[in-house]
Amino acid sequence: MSFAATLLTLYPEMFPGPLGLSLAGRALERGDWSLDTVQIRNFAQDKHRTVDDTPAGGGAGMVLKVDVLAAAIDHAREKRPDCPVLAMTPRGRPITQARIRALAEGPGVTILCGRFEGFDERIFESRDVEEVSVGDIVLSGGEPAALMILDACIRLLPGVMGAASSGVDESFEGGFLEYPQYTRPVEWEGRRIPEVLRSGDHAKIAAWRKTRAQDDTRLRRPDLWERHGGVRDLSASGAQQDSEE
Amino acid sequence: MSFAATLLTLYPEMFPGPLGLSLAGRALERGDWSLDTVQIRNFAQDKHRTVDDTPAGGGAGMVLKVDVLAAAIDHAREKRPDCPVLAMTPRGRPITQARIRALAEGPGVTILCGRFEGFDERIFESRDVEEVSVGDIVLSGGEPAALMILDACIRLLPGVMGAASSGVDESFEGGFLEYPQYTRPVEWEGRRIPEVLRSGDHAKIAAWRKTRAQDDTRLRRPDLWERHGGVRDLSASGAQQDSEE
Repeated sequence: MSFAATLLTLYPEMFPGPLGLSLAGRALERGDWSLDTVQIRNFAQDKHRTVDDTPAGGGAGMVLKVDVLAAAIDHAREKRPDCPVLAMTPRGRPITQARIRALAEGPGVTILCGRFEGFDERIFESRDVEEVSVGDIVLSGGEPAALMILDACIRLLPGVMGAASSGVDESFEGGFLEYPQYTRPVEWEGRRIPEVLRSGDHAKIAAWRKTRAQDDTRLRRPDLWERHGGVRDLSASGAQQDSEE
Repeated sequence: MSFAATLLTLYPEMFPGPLGLSLAGRALERGDWSLDTVQIRNFAQDKHRTVDDTPAGGGAGMVLKVDVLAAAIDHAREKRPDCPVLAMTPRGRPITQARIRALAEGPGVTILCGRFEGFDERIFESRDVEEVSVGDIVLSGGEPAALMILDACIRLLPGVMGAASSGVDESFEGGFLEYPQYTRPVEWEGRRIPEVLRSGDHAKIAAWRKTRAQDDTRLRRPDLWERHGGVRDLSASGAQQDSEE
């Protein structure tokens, strides 16, 4: 059973885009995930194939019509009733690594990409759609955000990263940023790899990494740190999985 | 003077990708922005063109070598000394719309995209690189995140959205989410556009939108609300620009 990605978009030719290359591209070729794009315009109700109209109450830009969106969503849901429907919107809930992991463990995901000024709000009142945001910035459309969500899911699918990298010991797993990484050369421009990392003492290395992960989280991301409860004394890696959020 | 986007990446063929279409694609054709990709591998120091090595202290995955990264960054900075260098990493500072706006007003941006387990930390100790994160999720590489950053910048460039949409009255400008949008039909599946939006009373419409933007921010994004100071009584749109962060 491969992970089924369905994109509802006005620009199906944006996919797979970067996901056709590298890790995600090889996984697509192997059939670890499948891609289906649905052209929203095919669900327009008039002969001009209108998908948007001016905002009620005035203002700049155009709003995607609720009847067109609903028809596209209903179509996708009929084909994949088991897949949650996400809509990319700056008004949505910020995505988390925990949500990505849950999606990657499921049958797939259907993602609705907006353009223009956004969606008629009634689509969220009338259909079971999860409003998701990726970073507090505004895009020209949901497509680049959808590519990010899919990339994050695909790398977690079984076999994609290989057995060596489970994805457990990295940023946001356990609610912390990842510790800093170093590799050869040992000395470069007068800067040396921290001695502890070259000690061969696995317990000391693990302790150093845990401390750095916690300190960096506290300094760089007080919001994540607070959400975690601001505690510093969590036991090691076993406790770090699935405790995010 | 067009906005100069430079990407340091192991996958130059991922660009322009989705940015070659729609709004960003037309802007690229017009010369509103320019795209230059730099293959990091060209700066490898050995005959095998090695770009990564195993993490000091052990662990899964591979780390991008600091000497290779530094050579690539130095090359890009020599060509575009006026452009800030960003590195996409989950350990970075979350991007904001205020930062996007500042970037879009500048000469361009150079973005370093990682792969594997990340960068040798010494690159950030030795070079002036801004560590940036986009959403609390982990990607297979920085490229999808870089596409998002660029998309957000490009739509704000002069002439790209047209005079009608200045980008001022939308999510995160002023620290609030955008108010909900509606368009025709007035009634759909028994759901009507809020009457106030059809009243033609511009003051009432502006007040309703302001209240909804504030209420939705408070309910959906208490973190943004708190950062804003939790005040509800800001004067209208004129005050909303540039007050983010």
